[in-house]
Amino acid sequence: MWVFVNDRFMRKEEAVVSVFDHGFLYGDGVYETLRSYGTRIFMRDQHLSRLRRSAESIGLRIPIPDEQWPELLHEAMRRNDVGTDRVDAYLRITISRGEGEIGLDPALCPRPTVVIMTKALHAPSPELLRDGVSLTVAQTRRNLPAALSPQIKSTNFLNNILAKRESIAAGTFDSLFLNWRDELTECTISNLFFVADGTVHTPALDCGILDGITRGIVMTLAKEEGLPVQEGHYQLNHLHKAEECFLTNTSMEVMPVSRVETFTIGDGRPGPVTRRLQKRFAASRTRFCEAAPEPHF
Amino acid sequence: MWVFVNDRFMRKEEAVVSVFDHGFLYGDGVYETLRSYGTRIFMRDQHLSRLRRSAESIGLRIPIPDEQWPELLHEAMRRNDVGTDRVDAYLRITISRGEGEIGLDPALCPRPTVVIMTKALHAPSPELLRDGVSLTVAQTRRNLPAALSPQIKSTNFLNNILAKRESIAAGTFDSLFLNWRDELTECTISNLFFVADGTVHTPALDCGILDGITRGIVMTLAKEEGLPVQEGHYQLNHLHKAEECFLTNTSMEVMPVSRVETFTIGDGRPGPVTRRLQKRFAASRTRFCEAAPEPHF
Ligand SMILES: Cc1ncc(COP(=O)(O)O)c(C=O)c1O
Ligand SMILES: Cc1ncc(COP(=O)(O)O)c(C=O)c1O
Repeated sequence: MWVFVNDRFMRKEEAVVSVFDHGFLYGDGVYETLRSYGTRIFMRDQHLSRLRRSAESIGLRIPIPDEQWPELLHEAMRRNDVGTDRVDAYLRITISRGEGEIGLDPALCPRPTVVIMTKALHAPSPELLRDGVSLTVAQTRRNLPAALSPQIKSTNFLNNILAKRESIAAGTFDSLFLNWRDELTECTISNLFFVADGTVHTPALDCGILDGITRGIVMTLAKEEGLPVQEGHYQLNHLHKAEECFLTNTSMEVMPVSRVETFTIGDGRPGPVTRRLQKRFAASRTRFCEAAPEPHF
Repeated sequence: MWVFVNDRFMRKEEAVVSVFDHGFLYGDGVYETLRSYGTRIFMRDQHLSRLRRSAESIGLRIPIPDEQWPELLHEAMRRNDVGTDRVDAYLRITISRGEGEIGLDPALCPRPTVVIMTKALHAPSPELLRDGVSLTVAQTRRNLPAALSPQIKSTNFLNNILAKRESIAAGTFDSLFLNWRDELTECTISNLFFVADGTVHTPALDCGILDGITRGIVMTLAKEEGLPVQEGHYQLNHLHKAEECFLTNTSMEVMPVSRVETFTIGDGRPGPVTRRLQKRFAASRTRFCEAAPEPHF
């Protein structure tokens, strides 16, 4: 396995950072996860834009010029023999503040650290995509946007890890977060949707959620299907009355939810809107994929 | 400079962790900073207890037995020629989840990473301790306790870094955080006190603050001085009316605050209560220091 660190690809065993890297000391960094369908990366430029937005929000400079990223990501896939016609790739880009003296001031770190990892995508099992998953409602609340906005895709992930631990303890697929005002937000690595009275609902960004790229696409596809789409502020009781519910993220696409705590969603089987969106997603993917750049010679 | 990583001391240049360490990927870790006065570590056992409490809160196992810590900390100081009669030491212990596959589940990481760093303590200048410092009131709010409790001393420090960036931009010493309810909390690496009507006030733990070890000592010393001490829920207007204000942490001890945004505290000079507490702290330090353990032969 080859990992890109700062300026070159190296073996996984050599891929290290200083213990003085502020990514390690303080979680001072941002990241993105991307995937390919075959050789083509899904929403590549949107993921790279979000990486830049996250970095800007914490005043972090990305040391690699914009135009080099596509080639770097494709080289990472080639070196690891993923992102091929047979194997879809999972990619993770991490940018941390870099090595520096102990202290909170970003100026202590002259050079940000860049890491690119890639491996074969681990897609959810067809059974889960067909039957749906169950969720825990976490005691842990989603990060307060005014403290650390969930729109910053940062390496401060303890909030999500604490909620994930709750779902592991409960034996469910994942945890659903409420925010500081008892409103629905998102899960630990995915966005939330539900269907009520034929309308597709999803929490508004100001509930304190990541503006998921898959969320945006699913909203577009729902509108193309002629379905009304509504972003809003919802509580748990909206979910109890929902006919359908599903999660979205880059690697799961559209994942049906059949149960939230002890409440069954609808009749406990993925509903017609969820299945329509799954199908339309599958049929539309390639529209949202970037081709590999021409290799440089 | 020698750094302890996992099971041995190594040169700073060799002190690295895998890019797959969840401390680097997710900020999944906890830490403590300690100091010595001469050869003796201040409140050593209390810092080690807080480290254990933090670790427990995130379900992290500390791979070094309790009884080995004192000797390890003293060896770290000896190797770096600090924590001597002439040079006070600064120490930082970091425990991260360790190396593991990408994913939020702590079970992916079989072995936590342990790092111990130490260097000469950088004490604040005598001028600041004599004249006081100015504070910015951060736009960034303190972490919501229900999302990620400030009582967990974790390596998720972006909330503090964002507030620190605000004070750097404003040219002040540090930022003061309000919480989600507009209440006073703490600064980015210190606790807050103010004096009003002869009473020493400090925000209660449930405002969402670290239960600072220096905070606890200063409350004890204030009571010993016959001063009434009150933990409570306060807003900015309490600070505007305060006669005195100061910050506490392990390396600053008692730091006077002379100005908060455009408001001068009292007459802009450290007041009598602050100075009494500084003096009593200086006179009482050794009461709170642990001696080095007997070396093992
Ligand atoms: C907290 C959170 N919400 C939502 C998502 C979904 O985002 P996307 O659709 O861009 O993958 C993610 C993805 O990692 C996430 O971490
Ligand atoms: C957020 C925060 N508050 C308060 C403190 C003061 O704690 P102590 O007195 O234990 O050093 C610290 C110390 O690092 C801190 O990080």
